[in-house]
Amino acid sequence: MDVKNNPNVKAANFDGQKIIFDKNYPDSTSDEALIRVNLAGICGTDLEIVDGYMKYQGILGHEFVGTVEKSQNPDLIGKRVVGEINVGCGVCDSCLKGMERHCSQRTVLGILKRNGAFAEFLSLPEKNLHVIPDSITDEQAVFVEPLAAAFEIKEQIKMEPQWDVAVVGDGRLAHLILQVIKSSCPNIVCFGRHKSKLESLEKLGIKTKIGIDSLDEQSFDLVVEATGSNSGFVDTMKLVRPRGTVILKSTIASRANLDLTPTVVNEITLIGSRCGLFKPAIDSLATGIITVDDMVDSTFPLEKFHEAVEYAKKPDTLKVFLKP
Amino acid sequence: MDVKNNPNVKAANFDGQKIIFDKNYPDSTSDEALIRVNLAGICGTDLEIVDGYMKYQGILGHEFVGTVEKSQNPDLIGKRVVGEINVGCGVCDSCLKGMERHCSQRTVLGILKRNGAFAEFLSLPEKNLHVIPDSITDEQAVFVEPLAAAFEIKEQIKMEPQWDVAVVGDGRLAHLILQVIKSSCPNIVCFGRHKSKLESLEKLGIKTKIGIDSLDEQSFDLVVEATGSNSGFVDTMKLVRPRGTVILKSTIASRANLDLTPTVVNEITLIGSRCGLFKPAIDSLATGIITVDDMVDSTFPLEKFHEAVEYAKKPDTLKVFLKP
Repeated sequence: MDVKNNPNVKAANFDGQKIIFDKNYPDSTSDEALIRVNLAGICGTDLEIVDGYMKYQGILGHEFVGTVEKSQNPDLIGKRVVGEINVGCGVCDSCLKGMERHCSQRTVLGILKRNGAFAEFLSLPEKNLHVIPDSITDEQAVFVEPLAAAFEIKEQIKMEPQWDVAVVGDGRLAHLILQVIKSSCPNIVCFGRHKSKLESLEKLGIKTKIGIDSLDEQSFDLVVEATGSNSGFVDTMKLVRPRGTVILKSTIASRANLDLTPTVVNEITLIGSRCGLFKPAIDSLATGIITVDDMVDSTFPLEKFHEAVEYAKKPDTLKVFLKP
Repeated sequence: MDVKNNPNVKAANFDGQKIIFDKNYPDSTSDEALIRVNLAGICGTDLEIVDGYMKYQGILGHEFVGTVEKSQNPDLIGKRVVGEINVGCGVCDSCLKGMERHCSQRTVLGILKRNGAFAEFLSLPEKNLHVIPDSITDEQAVFVEPLAAAFEIKEQIKMEPQWDVAVVGDGRLAHLILQVIKSSCPNIVCFGRHKSKLESLEKLGIKTKIGIDSLDEQSFDLVVEATGSNSGFVDTMKLVRPRGTVILKSTIASRANLDLTPTVVNEITLIGSRCGLFKPAIDSLATGIITVDDMVDSTFPLEKFHEAVEYAKKPDTLKVFLKP
């Protein structure tokens, strides 16, 4: 099928202010693979883009599973794949070290100068693709990208099994982070706000709390901030012990009154953490070490993008999918 | 001499708003050493306290060299000493790990619930004292405390000799930090603002720059923020490369518009850094690895405290001393 000449092929294209259901012309040049999107996931970053917090214009979406339709590698054609979302220049220091996600010239699927996955087709370089084993369903495969972001924490710090760990936030990303860290540090607590989400975490054997009491203060070796809110940052800094480590897993949209004084006085290490490598995420889903089925919420057809976004914004919603 | 009954003994006592030249009654109980202060140094923290940024009330000053007049350890009497400024409870987890400077019940000389060194006498536990060898002058010995704070960076991270390092700031602490790091990482640059201070650094073989150009951006593996200003923090975040490390060496008094987004996107590690151990600082002065003589500025008698503070605030001033 020649995508460029099929006027019925659709995508959710953000013009900087609103979504246009535009024709879907993948960026595909002859050296990238063309992928038919089976299923895509809505992430917090997508909601931020739609709310105008970021400057991206183009087709949204970066969590997906799809089927390769065209590729220079014949072995890939027809295969079910997920794709790393950062595409580096391939020649700079970062790219040569395997850190294309820090290339200053990079494009990022659905986030930075590269059309994304809320579309019938997308394109990515072959080297970004990972074939998904049959044991992983489409819904599960969509979690590979955010799960890789959770595994990134393990790339950045060496966790000690006796550590007391807190995760601030009970959203989709927090849910994955809690499971990933729990495999290294069993003494982990989620500080959340939403009863239904905390109940679903309790079912996985994760201790949860609403609100910080005085015994919690300065008592955690590692605290992960996964709310993206100023109040989450304040809670995080309350929980971490002197000389402890904080992982900043979400960008903090508002910047009012962020106070770094406790960071200096208590000699805290703050580590920013973003995208990760896909392999450990795929392996952990294939072996069942990480469970995502209880996070599957609803699936909307792509044309119902607006309804899907409104639904995803509700506090008790878990993962929402779009089907092109 | 019975200090308590000598009404002429004076100290610079801060009542929360102004300095009162009060009688000097050291906190000394029978289990602390009594030290006659030979010379004390004015530090940025003292200036912040006087400007009302902190909540301390009491005798100011934490950089000093003195002579032990009373002690339970007879070997100490008559010895010239400097003193670690944090006094922990001695029984908590932090204290038992040798990190009294992170004890939640600690007092801190001239900073937190403990009268300081801008006085004829002060008291500290014997375990906080370090005898100063004769090869170190009084002026040099006053630098032990801030120099220990510079050495703290080496306790916190493992530096690689091939790293490109930037220090933002050209003040007294920056001067010490630059020398300490240069011994591990020769590729070090000071980004400063004051021509005379930068000239004195150039004499020590340290490369200096005024202003950041595009080639400097995101090109340093390690950046130390030693200005305490918001603009210094902004410059620091411009200089550090993706996945690089930032040391926050000064508290940032104003908090307007601190943006942690680049920390997350570029996966920066921010490490707060405060007081350090005295031993490496004393050793480096004794062996001459660190030079502080070019930082010695003026000495004022304690009674001229106000003139000394005004002089210390001038941008080109280096270390100002008070002599009780």
